[in-house]
Amino acid sequence: MDAEAARWPRSEAWPVPAGLDTPCLVLDLAKVQANIERLQRALDARRVALRPHAKTHKSLRVGRMQLEAGARGLTVGTLGEAEVFAAGGFDDLFVAYPVLPGGSKAARLVSLLERVPRFAVGVDSVEAAARLGVATAGRARRLRVLVEVDPGDHRSGVAGPEEALDVARAARAAGLEVLGLFAHGGHGYRPGMAASAGSDEVRTLTEAAVALEAAGFEAATISAGSTPTMLTAAEGRVNEIRAGTYVFGDRQQWALGAIPAEGCAAAVVATVVSVREDRIVLDAGAKALTKDRAEWLGGFGLIPAAPGVTIQRLSDYHAVAASGRGDPGRPGLGDVVAIVPNHVCPVVDLFDAVTVVRRDGRTEIWPVDARGRSQ
Amino acid sequence: MDAEAARWPRSEAWPVPAGLDTPCLVLDLAKVQANIERLQRALDARRVALRPHAKTHKSLRVGRMQLEAGARGLTVGTLGEAEVFAAGGFDDLFVAYPVLPGGSKAARLVSLLERVPRFAVGVDSVEAAARLGVATAGRARRLRVLVEVDPGDHRSGVAGPEEALDVARAARAAGLEVLGLFAHGGHGYRPGMAASAGSDEVRTLTEAAVALEAAGFEAATISAGSTPTMLTAAEGRVNEIRAGTYVFGDRQQWALGAIPAEGCAAAVVATVVSVREDRIVLDAGAKALTKDRAEWLGGFGLIPAAPGVTIQRLSDYHAVAASGRGDPGRPGLGDVVAIVPNHVCPVVDLFDAVTVVRRDGRTEIWPVDARGRSQ
Repeated sequence: MDAEAARWPRSEAWPVPAGLDTPCLVLDLAKVQANIERLQRALDARRVALRPHAKTHKSLRVGRMQLEAGARGLTVGTLGEAEVFAAGGFDDLFVAYPVLPGGSKAARLVSLLERVPRFAVGVDSVEAAARLGVATAGRARRLRVLVEVDPGDHRSGVAGPEEALDVARAARAAGLEVLGLFAHGGHGYRPGMAASAGSDEVRTLTEAAVALEAAGFEAATISAGSTPTMLTAAEGRVNEIRAGTYVFGDRQQWALGAIPAEGCAAAVVATVVSVREDRIVLDAGAKALTKDRAEWLGGFGLIPAAPGVTIQRLSDYHAVAASGRGDPGRPGLGDVVAIVPNHVCPVVDLFDAVTVVRRDGRTEIWPVDARGRSQ
Repeated sequence: MDAEAARWPRSEAWPVPAGLDTPCLVLDLAKVQANIERLQRALDARRVALRPHAKTHKSLRVGRMQLEAGARGLTVGTLGEAEVFAAGGFDDLFVAYPVLPGGSKAARLVSLLERVPRFAVGVDSVEAAARLGVATAGRARRLRVLVEVDPGDHRSGVAGPEEALDVARAARAAGLEVLGLFAHGGHGYRPGMAASAGSDEVRTLTEAAVALEAAGFEAATISAGSTPTMLTAAEGRVNEIRAGTYVFGDRQQWALGAIPAEGCAAAVVATVVSVREDRIVLDAGAKALTKDRAEWLGGFGLIPAAPGVTIQRLSDYHAVAASGRGDPGRPGLGDVVAIVPNHVCPVVDLFDAVTVVRRDGRTEIWPVDARGRSQ
């Protein structure tokens, strides 16, 4: 048993409803609700808005729970996700992505702009700003954009305040409305990095906001956040947080210390289908758990009922876990166990529906409304 | 540029149809057809049957192409996949998996048994044989089973001939029809291991067949195979091969030498959405390419038009590729490129439909009929 497994509290055994066909994705609704309220309260206390990233849950119902708890609107990652939430009646959506209209995306962007009262997208280059302007020229409503700045994650986003100002000017020249700035502190996805990554977001955004304001832009929205930095970035000029994974939690966020063990609200439920001398085989493979595994994390998920059993290997429909015949808590043939996945976001995207367990034990099936909407 | 990228033939540039919304999955139909015919001819010449694993394509149309070329039937990995192909009229299906009826699976198994004229499942334990017998007792047709033996992959499967015989006897006692044996040489998924893993399959299956026959069982079907071992295991007593990935190919199979570069028939098509000094960002993230990456393989896919550009990092909707401003072949903002994924099977499972490009350049949309059918 590794150190991480030893830390998992035995009280968090993740009971599994009977009679499920496996593998399936199960949500503990009380835990989801607690996760939503916990972050909302923490941000309310700081007077920072919450715009949860819906790419984690892809669910209209979960999105409504977030709004009812006080979220400002939703963040999405693609036009396809925006379309699903727009059709579901959500009226405040931000596509936190450097949207570049190609194929039918220009027409889809215009349609979203016309249907969603508060709609914005990300932009991180002069050329993309120009293309967004061309795509939405002559429409009744101007497209709102937030300029993405790179806080040190080195994914998308401009490198600093001068470049942010260049993009903001290009956006204004292209007829877009510059609403503010956003950043994603993805470099906080490492043990011990949440505090510094959050500070990086605050500092980078503040420097860019100062540059924009000196040039006459308003920078009304200053948006940061990832689940690891959802509190450490909620400081200073930052007035919006876009955490996503916090809503369901996962093994990685728990191992990072971003959520408590009881915040792991989603589990892949699997059956032991083969038992051998040195291992057990479960029916949740890469098409149920994904092979997502940070390099600092061992194995492909955590089994709360047997946290010492490590899932070493996945093929499409098999998980192979090292476990000898005498191991304490070793599941037997036919046993059904919950597995907290390493990273819940791509796991949710594999399932058309989830089994939701209410506090009284009753279950419901909820659709994953935006499943597969990666375009 | 690494050694692998240098080996990619420049003639295999994977042209991309215009006007696609990205990310999307594209099939080159001529390459798919050539892959199907290449393996079918090689196995015909050896008088070994082909039962392709449909978990790769999950497509009724591709499955029919395989049957038309001479395949005996299809292999599937789950009851859910079997249900889709049964509904599509396929009459010979083998679930190459240690099926354990739980939840509604006993009823689903019976329904498949009654609808599919030639239907078989895998079994690798005495207890599972008993459960399959209980689930299908009293039906007009006996459930056929193949006993799984482990050729050294150490996933599921019994450890040797004595255990195989125990399971076969338990199956017969439970009222099941023992059709033969199967093995999966998954340990051939390593450079230089295809020959020995194929030999392991042949030897392990032969030893088990001898044991079964000595005890009065027929062992009519002796089934081996994976794409790396699809030829090396087609020897001796083995009379059926179950390769799956060969139909679309992928970067891993090409790097292993199992398929030629022109056998890479599937690509994720992506747009460059952000260009920075030292990197480009594409819109195919972990929800389009998956994070599947063998430890001996660097990066998350191969870009045929720029094989020296390595995809270093994926988040849900971003791929970050290392590439400096002066790099030859570096794609620019808005460029649309094909990416040959590391492992195509879980990639296909992310898409509801694929864009199929015919030889004359015309495109069609084909559904991924069994997408998400992991149960």
